[in-house]
Amino acid sequence: MRQLQLVIAYDGTNYHGWQIQPNALTVQQVLADAIARIMGHEVKLTGASRTDRGVHAKGQVATFKTANMSFPACRLPFALQALLPKDIVVTTCTKVDLNFHPQHHAISKSYVYHIYNSPHPDIFWRRYAWHVPRELSVSDMAKAAAHLVGEKDFSSFCCAGNAVKSTVRTVFGIEVCQVTPSLISISVQGNGFLYKMVRTIVGTLVEVGGQQRPVDSIPKIIQAKDRACAGSTAPAHGLVLEHIRFDD
Amino acid sequence: MRQLQLVIAYDGTNYHGWQIQPNALTVQQVLADAIARIMGHEVKLTGASRTDRGVHAKGQVATFKTANMSFPACRLPFALQALLPKDIVVTTCTKVDLNFHPQHHAISKSYVYHIYNSPHPDIFWRRYAWHVPRELSVSDMAKAAAHLVGEKDFSSFCCAGNAVKSTVRTVFGIEVCQVTPSLISISVQGNGFLYKMVRTIVGTLVEVGGQQRPVDSIPKIIQAKDRACAGSTAPAHGLVLEHIRFDD
Repeated sequence: MRQLQLVIAYDGTNYHGWQIQPNALTVQQVLADAIARIMGHEVKLTGASRTDRGVHAKGQVATFKTANMSFPACRLPFALQALLPKDIVVTTCTKVDLNFHPQHHAISKSYVYHIYNSPHPDIFWRRYAWHVPRELSVSDMAKAAAHLVGEKDFSSFCCAGNAVKSTVRTVFGIEVCQVTPSLISISVQGNGFLYKMVRTIVGTLVEVGGQQRPVDSIPKIIQAKDRACAGSTAPAHGLVLEHIRFDD
Repeated sequence: MRQLQLVIAYDGTNYHGWQIQPNALTVQQVLADAIARIMGHEVKLTGASRTDRGVHAKGQVATFKTANMSFPACRLPFALQALLPKDIVVTTCTKVDLNFHPQHHAISKSYVYHIYNSPHPDIFWRRYAWHVPRELSVSDMAKAAAHLVGEKDFSSFCCAGNAVKSTVRTVFGIEVCQVTPSLISISVQGNGFLYKMVRTIVGTLVEVGGQQRPVDSIPKIIQAKDRACAGSTAPAHGLVLEHIRFDD
C-alpha cells in the first residue's frame, strides 16, 4: 500500500465546491471517478481544504491510497488529463508517507481574492474577479487589513453553517495590491480559515475601500464576535485557493 | 443624424466571430440587436475588424448612425450592459464625425496572442491561451519575429478564404515576451492583417521556438509567397484584438 499526493487546479465555476455531496457535481467526485478508472479500483480522496461552490483552486492538495501502482507517480497527471474535463487539472503527483494527512499536516493556507474595480466589467476577469464599479481606496483597504494579522477570535468573520471547536485562527499575513489600474488582489495566509472567513474579510475591506466603513473599524468588529458587525460576504468567483504548506 | 463610435470587448468563445452571418451567433448581431432595443430602430453596425470565430477583443471599434439620441452618448454603455450577455461589454461610446469610417480610417491595429507553455494546461488561461506543452525558446522566437517587421508581401502567411487586392502589409512591430515563467505573449502591430495572418505568424514562431524550424527561416518563407511554406495556424482562442488607432 502506498499513499499518493496530488496538487490540483480547478475552475470552480461549474462545481458545487470540492466536497462530495449527493445530487451535485463536485470536484472531488469527478476527480475520484477519473482516478478510479485509471487505478482499477475505487479511491477515497482526502482533500486539504473544502472550497465552497464557485471557488477556484490553483493549489488544492488531496491524497489517496492504492496498492496497484504499475507506473511512476509523475505519469498520473498526464493520464488524468485525458479523462478529466478541461476545468480540472492535476499538476503534480508524488509519493508521500502513509501517515501523512493533508488536513492534519497543513500548517499554512494561502488564498487570493481578485476585485475588478472599474465602471465596466472586464471580459477576461468576469469569471475570476468580483466586479466592483465604485471607486475603492487600496491604501485604506491595506491599512484596515493590517488589523487582521495575528492570532484572533475571528467569529465576526465566520458564517453559520460549519460547526468548529474554536473560532480562533492565526492570519500570518494579508496584502492588498493594485495589480493593474483596475485590478486589485487581496492575498491572505493563515493557519486555517473559518467558513467563508476570507470572503467576509474581503467584503468588509471593500466596504472600507468604498468609504462605507471607517479605516479603523476592524478591531471593533473583531472584539464584537458577532457576524452582523462585519461586511457582506464577497462572491465566491473572485476567490482562489492558491497554495497549502505542510510540515515535513 | 449623428454617428456614434463604440469600443467593444468580448470573449469570442461562444461566437462565430464578429461579422453577421446567417444561422450563427455573432457579436455584431447580438450587439446590433441590443442597440436597436435601446434606440428604437434597427441599426447598421460597421466594425473596424472582422475577428474570426473564437477570437477575442478588448478594443474592437464599431460605429452606427442614429437620429434618435435622447441621452448623452456616454450613458449608452451602461444601458447596453443591462441588455448584453456577460461576454460582450461596450466600454466607451463617443460622438464622431459623420464621415468617419472605422475601416477606412484605421491606421494601426494591435493584436496580442497568448501561449501557455507548460507540461500541464492552466485552468485560468485555458480559454485565452494556446497550451503548448513542449519547451519553447522565447529568444529564438523573438529573433525570428524581427524578420517580419516592415512592409512586405505576406501571402505566405495568408490563408485562403479572403479575396484581397493586395497581400502587402506593413508590420510596425512584433514583440515576443516571457510574461511569467509559463506565459508567453506575442504582440503585433500593423496597418492591417490578411486572413489568419497573425495566427499563421504565431504558429510559425512556435515551430521556431520548439526547434522544428531554424531561427533564420522567416525571410525564405516570406520570399516563397506560398502558404505551404509557413507553419500551422495557431488556434483562435489565444488571440485578442487589443487596440485600433485611427487618423484624426
